[in-house]
Amino acid sequence: MIDSIKSWVGGNLIGDDCAVLACQTLVSTDALVEGVHFRRDLMTLEEIGWKAVAVNLSDIAAMAGRPRYLFVTVCAPAGFSQNDFRSLYKGIGDCARQFRAVIAGGDITASDQLMLSVTVIGDVHENGCLTRSGAKPGDVLIATGDFGASKAGLWQLLSGERAEKRNQQSVSSHTLDKHIRPVPRLPEAWMLVEKTGSKGALMDASDGLADALVQLARTSSVGLMVELGSIPIHEQTKKVAALANVDPVDWALYGGEDYELVGCIDANVWGEWRKEGSKGNPFVPIGIVTDGSSIDLTRHGSAAPPLDMSKSFQHL
Amino acid sequence: MIDSIKSWVGGNLIGDDCAVLACQTLVSTDALVEGVHFRRDLMTLEEIGWKAVAVNLSDIAAMAGRPRYLFVTVCAPAGFSQNDFRSLYKGIGDCARQFRAVIAGGDITASDQLMLSVTVIGDVHENGCLTRSGAKPGDVLIATGDFGASKAGLWQLLSGERAEKRNQQSVSSHTLDKHIRPVPRLPEAWMLVEKTGSKGALMDASDGLADALVQLARTSSVGLMVELGSIPIHEQTKKVAALANVDPVDWALYGGEDYELVGCIDANVWGEWRKEGSKGNPFVPIGIVTDGSSIDLTRHGSAAPPLDMSKSFQHL
Repeated sequence: MIDSIKSWVGGNLIGDDCAVLACQTLVSTDALVEGVHFRRDLMTLEEIGWKAVAVNLSDIAAMAGRPRYLFVTVCAPAGFSQNDFRSLYKGIGDCARQFRAVIAGGDITASDQLMLSVTVIGDVHENGCLTRSGAKPGDVLIATGDFGASKAGLWQLLSGERAEKRNQQSVSSHTLDKHIRPVPRLPEAWMLVEKTGSKGALMDASDGLADALVQLARTSSVGLMVELGSIPIHEQTKKVAALANVDPVDWALYGGEDYELVGCIDANVWGEWRKEGSKGNPFVPIGIVTDGSSIDLTRHGSAAPPLDMSKSFQHL
Repeated sequence: MIDSIKSWVGGNLIGDDCAVLACQTLVSTDALVEGVHFRRDLMTLEEIGWKAVAVNLSDIAAMAGRPRYLFVTVCAPAGFSQNDFRSLYKGIGDCARQFRAVIAGGDITASDQLMLSVTVIGDVHENGCLTRSGAKPGDVLIATGDFGASKAGLWQLLSGERAEKRNQQSVSSHTLDKHIRPVPRLPEAWMLVEKTGSKGALMDASDGLADALVQLARTSSVGLMVELGSIPIHEQTKKVAALANVDPVDWALYGGEDYELVGCIDANVWGEWRKEGSKGNPFVPIGIVTDGSSIDLTRHGSAAPPLDMSKSFQHL
């Protein structure tokens, strides 16, 4: 009878002596400092506010949680006007509202350089928590969105391309938007945890895809085989990379700040999900989890050089 | 029978259809910025770390909560060494441990000036939460510790008295310690909420006693009568004030950073508590709550000039 009810009403909470309710709390905190994480000549205050919240929400997405409350501390330099504060908090509020998080407190103080310190509090999804350490050999390595675009956008900003490109709504707005207005992958993370429960692994690639691969492999004590040709890279990223005379795969691996999700999912569960069709599935497979400890790369089937972490992501 | 059991086992949770468990969470965040809240030539990094935690724990004490978790973000300038970090985190860890709070996360990033942003998460005491808005006419206005000492300590630091005085363990160490190593009044707050439940009002006087009086009166929609002669002022504070040629009562009212508690308690509950003797009671009465809306001051029984908020606390 209980099994029938479970099948009728769904959910994994029924069937034991007690229901184990997810009352665990997720907390993460991330600071954005002028000159280190952003430049005010390259981004508007509204964009800076949005990004400060988005990068924190991305940490909640990385564990498949739901953001609830945000605490925002702003250290503002002399001359920061009421209008400046309004623009900053407009961006903060827009991003918070879009993902149903509530600004619940914070602090405002003086400083020499603009600094935002955000703490986000969230709930563990009722299906559980996905961490970096849950990858098992045989799992499929999957990822959301596309990689390298944020770095391409930063390259455009630093090359002074911003004004003309953005105002024209030009072909390159994808890359600029990915850098300036990153979108935390919360619905994508919930979709995954609804398919997998707390089995599998997940993290965000905020410090670059290469870094995420290293973290997943090390924390889960597994190896990875990654097909570089499978890493999604946007057409605009490739165009900007060509202008910059850079291999777009390097930006995808080492560029950072993409705020995409990288996860590992049981191969059977993945197979079932794929059978439903790729429509509505925000993940693509980029490799497999092995019982080794190394990260082996292929590019269109041929062995490729190993990761070179010296190319890794540095802010600005 | 239930009344008997209540009297045998204590506690306010028994006796209704459900026990209402205090699962409410308190969160507060406070940043300390170099040059604004502290100067590195006047305080050691260990002291700065301690103070960054203490001022946050004081916000939890101000609502009679119990601190649980701390999230510490450090923005450190170029040249901040491994030893510097160790000293800073030594102070952070010492204060956290003393009050049973656990460092659960944070962020470290570069910046031009040293900045600490701390978020503290705590539980509401099982007897309830004390806020600024709970004062009722007829309540007794009470306070912990002593006032003006932190300002006296800051005056000493700014006068270059630090080295000789501290190293000699001199008579003035109380005032220096109050500025440099404030102690959050957590046990005192718990004692109050155990006597009163969630009735009454409480806040910390971090921005000065005068500010606390204004906040309590406004938020609770009450008036206050305060006897300035009853405000506890340490002998050393008076001595330093004499050197500075300042009325120590001004430092007590406007100096700020004392991190003492100011509360309002039902007169009968206060009377019962006083009957037990003043031993172990960390509060002293400094006035009463009225049904007006003004803050009326007396000094040794005679009317005194009203509060002058232009004298109020400014950092450094």
